[in-house]
Formats: sequence, structure tokens, C-alpha cells
Amino acid sequence: MNEMLQTLGENAREAEVILRNLGTAKKNQVLEAVADSLVAHADKLLAANAIDVENGRRNHMPEGLVDRLMLTEARIEGMAEGLRQVAALDDPIGEVTGMKKRPNGLMIGQKRVPLGVIGIIYEARPNVTADAFALCFKTGNVVILKGGSDAIHSNTAIVDCIRSALKAQDLTENAIQLIQDTSRETTAEFMKMNEYVDVLIPRGGRGLIKAVVNGSTIPVIETGTGNCHIYVDESADLNMAADIVMNAKTQRVGVCNACESLLVHEKVKDAFLPVLAERLRTKHVEMRADEAAKALIPDAVSATEEDWGTEYLDYILSIKVVSSVEEAIRHINRYNTGHSEAIITRDYNNAQKFLDEVDAAAVYVNASTRFTDGFEFGFGAEIGISTQKLHARGPMGLLALTSTKYIIYGNGQIRP
Amino acid sequence: MNEMLQTLGENAREAEVILRNLGTAKKNQVLEAVADSLVAHADKLLAANAIDVENGRRNHMPEGLVDRLMLTEARIEGMAEGLRQVAALDDPIGEVTGMKKRPNGLMIGQKRVPLGVIGIIYEARPNVTADAFALCFKTGNVVILKGGSDAIHSNTAIVDCIRSALKAQDLTENAIQLIQDTSRETTAEFMKMNEYVDVLIPRGGRGLIKAVVNGSTIPVIETGTGNCHIYVDESADLNMAADIVMNAKTQRVGVCNACESLLVHEKVKDAFLPVLAERLRTKHVEMRADEAAKALIPDAVSATEEDWGTEYLDYILSIKVVSSVEEAIRHINRYNTGHSEAIITRDYNNAQKFLDEVDAAAVYVNASTRFTDGFEFGFGAEIGISTQKLHARGPMGLLALTSTKYIIYGNGQIRP
Repeated sequence: MNEMLQTLGENAREAEVILRNLGTAKKNQVLEAVADSLVAHADKLLAANAIDVENGRRNHMPEGLVDRLMLTEARIEGMAEGLRQVAALDDPIGEVTGMKKRPNGLMIGQKRVPLGVIGIIYEARPNVTADAFALCFKTGNVVILKGGSDAIHSNTAIVDCIRSALKAQDLTENAIQLIQDTSRETTAEFMKMNEYVDVLIPRGGRGLIKAVVNGSTIPVIETGTGNCHIYVDESADLNMAADIVMNAKTQRVGVCNACESLLVHEKVKDAFLPVLAERLRTKHVEMRADEAAKALIPDAVSATEEDWGTEYLDYILSIKVVSSVEEAIRHINRYNTGHSEAIITRDYNNAQKFLDEVDAAAVYVNASTRFTDGFEFGFGAEIGISTQKLHARGPMGLLALTSTKYIIYGNGQIRP
Repeated sequence: MNEMLQTLGENAREAEVILRNLGTAKKNQVLEAVADSLVAHADKLLAANAIDVENGRRNHMPEGLVDRLMLTEARIEGMAEGLRQVAALDDPIGEVTGMKKRPNGLMIGQKRVPLGVIGIIYEARPNVTADAFALCFKTGNVVILKGGSDAIHSNTAIVDCIRSALKAQDLTENAIQLIQDTSRETTAEFMKMNEYVDVLIPRGGRGLIKAVVNGSTIPVIETGTGNCHIYVDESADLNMAADIVMNAKTQRVGVCNACESLLVHEKVKDAFLPVLAERLRTKHVEMRADEAAKALIPDAVSATEEDWGTEYLDYILSIKVVSSVEEAIRHINRYNTGHSEAIITRDYNNAQKFLDEVDAAAVYVNASTRFTDGFEFGFGAEIGISTQKLHARGPMGLLALTSTKYIIYGNGQIRP
């Protein structure tokens, strides 16, 4: 293995022992101190960030990405505020659950513990650097960061600032380490450091996540895309349905829990689709419809097979008429990405059927898919939204960064 | 992708929809019917198995492996009994936990659901075929099996028998499928079928598990090896300590929860080690000791650095004298495999410190490490013992084969 990576790995394992049993009060104090330090060193962070932004512009980085890359005083204050919010959350570490006495007298329970060393691979978004540290540190985990090369100066400055604050708090600086070498080869090696890294979390677009899933031998916590559907049942309150579709489609279009596809029961299509289409037009939403829906929405584009499987992340909605809740469920289970799905209905049986049979991280009755979010679910933080089924599914709060161990109290038991 | 694998994958995804919502009564009825069918077709299974055994012997398979491969009427009855036991277990699927009302009125809870399609890769042990089916089916999961080539005739016969029983129960036969082509190429492709398989579970030795972890892009539930330690503290009840060491080392030596290494506090070494050594000699346990321990056990071999990291799975025990509970914990955290670790002590603080600081799936006070087992923990079944930290850690019962989804009851909520 690359010597630099090995040193990082060894440093991380040493720091892990210290962080594992750090008390909540100390962890919160450190998070507050790091927040203060980021604000106090805003000038350094801005200077480093200016180099990245200049390089980005020189390399013709699209303005949207430059915007994500850019730091301002207000954004640094926002990063600090994020750290303070994490400090204020309950610490999940140390809780013991399910302690039960076995017939032989052994008392067996599960204690909540950190995962250990977490690797985070992300793109050119410097705010992730501070955010990832906060979530990992609060849960007693050591973090090794691999950010995008376009943000290397910003990330280095932020990590230096955090490490100095850790040192000033008499804590190991290696609670956070940044991989300076952002080459593909080093990243590929990093993803196979099973001996030193307990879990990898990719944060970014589809391509990044896929590359990590395919390249890593370390377990990955995967966040995913959202091709989210809303099904308007024949018994739906159509005003409620239109409100929810408008919200889920247009309240924010570039997010994974936005609605991308609408299914409408044939018995309400005449009453519903023209009214909804009128409202969608006010927001300039392009409608891509099957034949039955198109007959009611003259300005709709004909939907292709590809549309049913597409997460637009844009002012576009695919629309299909179905003849039953069963057809809606079949369609959703075929084309969805396992993220968030909703039924609008007044029918008890259809509501329960939809909740039972739709295979997704979050299944809604009579609510917008936009609620799939760690903060909306009441977790106070969000690492991402898992669309895989192992370890964590749906919005991930601090608990997703923890494991458990069995603790067993005996008084001399041996196995017969 | 290999056409055969693609067909298997598509069959599995179709069967998944059926199994996902199968009622508990029906699942139990099917498990009982499969058990009866295995016994009723014992002659077919024995005939198929005889071919594998003959091939094995012709290819000079070691007798230990031939024994694991071989079926007898009693072993087939044992497989059937295993199915009936799984039928008798509580069904974890469908339970909703943590349903809470958010300030906006949304009711959010987590429903226990199957993982979906589970791939199992194992060696030449035909009993795993029926066992894996039972555990997956009970939890509403579809299973695709890839067994060892040495057991292909036995596995084919068992799977045929199960599929016939499924058909007779008007259920999809594709709840279980066996990959007939056991070539390396096909196995490598199988481990990358992320679209069709939700999780892979390797069952077998260290080499198999490592190959799956390294070769799979599908999430893996990893079971591991056990380099388990017992630390005898200065305050230990030395009779209890000797009983526990004897049990953990010699009750069964070839298992992952057996004790491989003993740490003894220097203040009790004189009183403890000669007595223990005398008892270990009666079981012909080879002792590999550091200098301080060797001075008290003349017939001990000198331990090398390699010994501290070795899982012997044999009548061998490494022995080291330490000067504090802290040194014991450091040694264990350096050399253990995250399986099972025990302290024998009468000191409250040392007990708590050991439970807090030792990083392993199961940490014991005053009990044998041999209890780390799904049945001993009261789960009624065991898929294996996880030594990784994601998803499941420690003995895995039926819950390890499940996931959750969020279900949300609303009444028109939209996101502000």
C-alpha cells in the first residue's frame, strides 16, 4: 500500500481508541470550539477558497459548480452554525438496549458504539468537510476525507483549522485527516483499505456513488437517486392531490425527494388532469404524458419508455393514466429507485395496500414526498438518504454512523 | 451479463413481489411441507449425494470434507427438523416500530420488511442449502444459491425437492434457485448482479469470505474468524477463571467462539498458571507462552509474535502475562478479530472498563466466550456471526435478513 495512506490509516486507528470513549460533554465542547475557530479564521479560509475558485474559472468550471465551491463569510458562519447544531443533538453513543436475562443467568444487551473509522469521498463542496467532521465526531468516529481536487485548497484550510482547534482542546488532531493526493490511483487504493477503514460514505452525484460502490471492498453506505411517484387514486381528494403534486414537483426541483412521475386513476383523470395541468403551467412544468393523459393535456409531450425511468431533477413531470391501484403499484415497483412514493386516496384498503406493497425507503399516504429528509423526520441531522436495504434505509441521522456490540454480564457461566 | 444469470435474476425479482407480502401462516405451512418433502424423497437425495461423495473420494477429497459433504437418513431428518424449527419461530416481518407524530401531524414509523433477493455463496455442505432456504423464506426473502461444485448433485436434488414442494403449495418455485454453473467466471459475474441481488452472504471458511468481500459489488454480510481472548484480572475468582478457560478452550476447539489466547495479570500468575496448566494438560492442550508465563509452565513452547494473531481452531492456547487491565485491553484491541472477548474479575471498575473499551462483537464479564451464538443468545436461529460493524454485529438471527421502510400517514401535508 501507498505509504501515505498507510500512515493515515495507522493514525486513524490510534485516534479511534481515544474517540471511542470520549464523553458527550467533551465532544460538544470541541464542536463548539471548532465552530468558533472556523469563524475566527474566516480570512484564511476565504483566501484558500479564492485559489480554488480562480482555478475553477480558469478551467471553465460551470457556474453552478463554482457556486457550490465558493465560500463567503455567511457560508462559513453557516458551517459553524451546523457544527453548533450537531453539538446540541442527543449523543446516541453508550445507550444499552434490550438487556435481557437468559435462562442460564447471563444478562445480554446491546450497547451503541461508534463505527470506528469512516471514509468520506465527496466532490468540490467545501461545506461537506466541516459537516462530515461534525457528524462523525459527535458519534465518536474518526474520519478520513477524500474531497474533490477542485476544492483541495479550501479543504486543506478547513481541515487545518479543525485540527488546530482539536489540538488546542488537547485532543488528537487525527480525529480528522484529509487525503491531499486526489489522484484516481490513490482514491482506488483508499477504497480497498479494509484494515483501516470500517465504512465508506460517498457524498455526491450518481457517478461518484457508482464509482465507489464498484471500486470499494470496504462496506459502503450508499445514498441514491430518487425517481419518486405520486399516485392519485380514484377516491382521492383532488384538491389535496393537486396541492401535493405541485409541492412535490415544484417546491424544489433539483432534489432527490422531488416528484418525477404522476400516476392518475382513469376514473378521475377528466376531473383532475386539466386542473392540475393549468397549475403546472404557471410554474412552467413540462408535461410528458401517455396517450390517455395527453388527450386531456393538449400541450403535453408524448412520454417515451425512457421517461418512466428518469429522474429529471428539473421542471419536467411524466404522467400516466392507470386503471387500478394494483397497476400503479406494479408500475412504481418497476421504475422507482426505492426512494419515496406517495398515494393520494380516501380509500382505507388502497392506502394500506400501497404502504404494504410499494418497495421504497419511504412510502406516504396523503403527503408530499418532499418530507423524506433527516430534519423533517426529526433526526436533527442528515448524513444522506439511503436507498439500499442494508444497515440504514431512508433518511440517515446520527444513528446511521453507529454500530452496536453485545455486552454480557455473567457470574461464571460455562457452556454445557 | 451471462444470459442464465440474467434469467435467474429476473425470476428472483418476480418471486420477490410474491414473497414480500406472504402471510406468516402460509410461510410456516410451506416450511413444514418442504420438511416433509425432504424426508419423503430421502432416497433421491441419498442417490444424488452418493455421486458427489464418490467423485469427492476419487478426487482425493480429505475425509473431513467428505464427512461434511455426506448425507445420511439421520442428516436429512436433521435438515427437516431445522426447517420445522424455523417455522416455529416468530415472524419478524410486518412489525411497525417507533411510530411518532411530527409537529405537522405526519405519523412516521418503521415497518420491518424483507431484504428482497439474497445471494448465498457456500462450500460443499448440502445442509446449508435447506438451512439457507428456511431462513430466507421465513423472512420473506427470495434466495439464489451458489454452492460448491463438489456438492452440485446433492444441492440440485435438494433444490428440486424444495421447488416441487413450493409448486405443490401453489407458490412460485423461484423462491429458491440454484446456480448450476459453478465456474469461477459465473461466480464472479454473480457477485456483481447489483440490479437483481440485494445482499450477498458468504458461508464458509476465511478464503471464501475474503474472495466474496473482494469480488462483490453487492453489499455483503460478512461473517468472520474469532481470535478470542480471556483476560484473568488480578481480582479474579481463580477457580471460576480456570473453569471458564477450560470451557472456552476445550469444549469445542474448531469453532470461532473458542478461546485462542489467555492473558493473566502478573499478580495472580503464580497462583493461577500452574493450576490451569495441569488441567490443560489433561486435555492435551499445547501452551505457547511468553517468558513470564513459561517460567511457570516448563513444558510450554515460546510464543512468537505470530501466535498473538493466530486463530488456532485446535488444542493450542497462547498465554501472556500482563501488568494491568489497560495492557490487556490494548493487547486485545491490537490482535483480536472483533469476535468475542472476556474478562474474569471481581473488580467493578475493571469490569466496566473492559466492557467499554474492548472493541468486539461480544464482550463478556465472568462467562465463557463460547456463548456467542444465535441459539445461546435466544434468537432461535443463526445465519452466522458478524464481525463487521455495518447492518448486524455479533450473532445474526432472522432480523439480520430484514430491512425496514418508513411508512408515513398524512392528511394533506405539503412542505413549506
